[in-house]
Amino acid sequence: MIQRPRGTRDFGPEEMEVRRFFEGMMRQEAVLHGFREISTPIFEHTELFTLKSGPGVIEEIYSFKDKGDREICLRPELTASVIRFFVNDLTTLPRPLKMFYFGQCFRYERPQAGRYREFFQFGAEIIGSPTPETDAEAIGLAAAILERTGLKDYRIRIGHIGILRELLAKAGVPGDNALPILQKLDKKSYPEAEELMAQAGMGVIDIAKIIETTKITGPVSVLDSYDGQARDYIRQVCDVLVAMGFSNISVDLGVVRGLAYYTGMVFEVDAPKLGAEKQICGGGSYSLSELFGGEKVFSTGFAIGFDRTLLALQTEGVEFPQPKLTAYVVPVGDTAREKAFQIASELRRAGISADVDIMRRNIGKNLKSADSAKARYALIIGDKELENCSVTLRDLSSGEQQSIAFADLVQKLKD
Amino acid sequence: MIQRPRGTRDFGPEEMEVRRFFEGMMRQEAVLHGFREISTPIFEHTELFTLKSGPGVIEEIYSFKDKGDREICLRPELTASVIRFFVNDLTTLPRPLKMFYFGQCFRYERPQAGRYREFFQFGAEIIGSPTPETDAEAIGLAAAILERTGLKDYRIRIGHIGILRELLAKAGVPGDNALPILQKLDKKSYPEAEELMAQAGMGVIDIAKIIETTKITGPVSVLDSYDGQARDYIRQVCDVLVAMGFSNISVDLGVVRGLAYYTGMVFEVDAPKLGAEKQICGGGSYSLSELFGGEKVFSTGFAIGFDRTLLALQTEGVEFPQPKLTAYVVPVGDTAREKAFQIASELRRAGISADVDIMRRNIGKNLKSADSAKARYALIIGDKELENCSVTLRDLSSGEQQSIAFADLVQKLKD
Repeated sequence: MIQRPRGTRDFGPEEMEVRRFFEGMMRQEAVLHGFREISTPIFEHTELFTLKSGPGVIEEIYSFKDKGDREICLRPELTASVIRFFVNDLTTLPRPLKMFYFGQCFRYERPQAGRYREFFQFGAEIIGSPTPETDAEAIGLAAAILERTGLKDYRIRIGHIGILRELLAKAGVPGDNALPILQKLDKKSYPEAEELMAQAGMGVIDIAKIIETTKITGPVSVLDSYDGQARDYIRQVCDVLVAMGFSNISVDLGVVRGLAYYTGMVFEVDAPKLGAEKQICGGGSYSLSELFGGEKVFSTGFAIGFDRTLLALQTEGVEFPQPKLTAYVVPVGDTAREKAFQIASELRRAGISADVDIMRRNIGKNLKSADSAKARYALIIGDKELENCSVTLRDLSSGEQQSIAFADLVQKLKD
Repeated sequence: MIQRPRGTRDFGPEEMEVRRFFEGMMRQEAVLHGFREISTPIFEHTELFTLKSGPGVIEEIYSFKDKGDREICLRPELTASVIRFFVNDLTTLPRPLKMFYFGQCFRYERPQAGRYREFFQFGAEIIGSPTPETDAEAIGLAAAILERTGLKDYRIRIGHIGILRELLAKAGVPGDNALPILQKLDKKSYPEAEELMAQAGMGVIDIAKIIETTKITGPVSVLDSYDGQARDYIRQVCDVLVAMGFSNISVDLGVVRGLAYYTGMVFEVDAPKLGAEKQICGGGSYSLSELFGGEKVFSTGFAIGFDRTLLALQTEGVEFPQPKLTAYVVPVGDTAREKAFQIASELRRAGISADVDIMRRNIGKNLKSADSAKARYALIIGDKELENCSVTLRDLSSGEQQSIAFADLVQKLKD
């Protein structure tokens, strides 16, 4: 037997029904919010991701040379691809651009619960608008999607790297010098962050204040003891979200994203029931287009981990409407066979789902198949029915049978 | 600027609306026919495809070593993956299994019109049923999908490799010995096919008869001068298709698929308007599972080239219903901003699509944005409206305006 590659999955019919249902729900919600879908290739030039995340990213991705000796890789995420597409082809579209995507991403890492080598992300980006409402509109889409799925237990935590950056600047560590420190804080590596801050000449009190700040979490009022632009900005973002009816948001200054291109608001969503791999969504505002040769443009976006969100929904036992087969057509004997296919085709053309025996089985086995396909009705056609131009319609839950003329079938099953 | 990889495409919002519309239509049609969706990984162990198609296939695919030194590749097609999945995990499901898939495939070949390195296939497989109706059910799904898209100019050509195999066996070239000859006939390389047949000891008349047979095409009656099981089988397939209401089918004994695992019926669909790359669908019955370590199981399937089918639809100017934005919410002045987001959220929660100004633009620019977003209505909220708990609703096609109370908005826009 040939196995599927490690860390990848096959999805059978039951799983795909769940997945397509929630994928469709996310897509629909994005469209309701005025976002439009785009799509980019599964593989990209590796440079796209080393420019964005540094050469270290190569360790974590599927990178290889193609037959033309070009360095390409399976995309580990989609934001870089979206911005590449924007820089190359979409700069003349009216702004703001509100775009979303859904697709596979790939990471070469040890597979474990909730972490796969091939995984699925739903994400959105707003390009070209630098206001707090823009950030709220992005967080609001993520929140509306999670609300629509029916997920109950999740927390939206909003931070702003500007607050730490302002404090670090005041303490004598401005601009790019702060980046290595932010990267340690992002990983909650406090001793190493403290060491870097001490090396940068910061005093013990300032260092303690920074560490303490990253632990601040709660309602917007926890920001009262800070001042500055970043605090005012995050307050406005939260006010808009409250106006939009999202109450399960909190401020968490421990949300730090230690990459140079994040510019301000950052947010994460956790589903606590998932344990160690509980983050189901993350995002923030960033400036990436200039790295790819474009003009500098303010952007905000997020990605939802589709697989983890489904896991969280399963943990909560969320139900979804399963598609049902309406009719299972059963020819009895050879003479009825062509008529059975004619009827199945007529139903299908009328938008009524219909299966039909293709294995020439006896009526007992066919009724069992109709049952296991969870069909609503079996339509039995034998010599007697052919003579009467009718089928025997059997309701598979009640067992009741009635005779229905061929001509009335579509109308009857449409109800 | 970083370019996307050669032979790949980015799809913008307009294109994605078309693509998702037709993808959804194909999926829906398959479900109406009692098929259920499955999904397999984007990459596989390379062995899966060399077993199926021979080592030569490596030249044409994206194959590479992963960091664990495993030979993997981007899938060039999905039938092998579906059968691998079946052999490993699905053998205990009730038969027949009727499955479909939609996704990206990859081939390393020179990009040209209608040929991409990343392309999309919709396909279906029926596993476990060895009757002519099974083949008709597979062809019938392909035909129903194309009918549903609205495509007008296409031809379904049905052949059976058994007819050539029977003739070759009678002429002294039985079983596997016939395969190299069939491969040449598949490529219409007649001189080479003739040479192979002569080498196999066939006489001039027999050779001429084989060549002539591959050129036979027309209604089912063209088979009258042949006999044998294959002819009877193909007649039955066609009879069922006619009962299903598909009249644009013809027999074409030139449809040969030169791979050992094809067992009988083979078919192709062309859209002649596409010129050289006119094949939009191909399939047949095959036996592949035993190559992957499973029991031998009769299977029938097909794949539709999604990109080429869209090209064919475009050539014919087929229209599709474009999604429209219902409301574009325009706050006038700072005080109305939060109310604008509240209203947009209420509409979205009610399933009404709504966009909202996030760039703090003046009313003139916002109305322009609403127009370019093709919104049906602009909802204007200024101080006066806030005071009256109402919005000014402007119909963007007629220019008519009316005042609507906040409380009545959802009802009004639902109509």
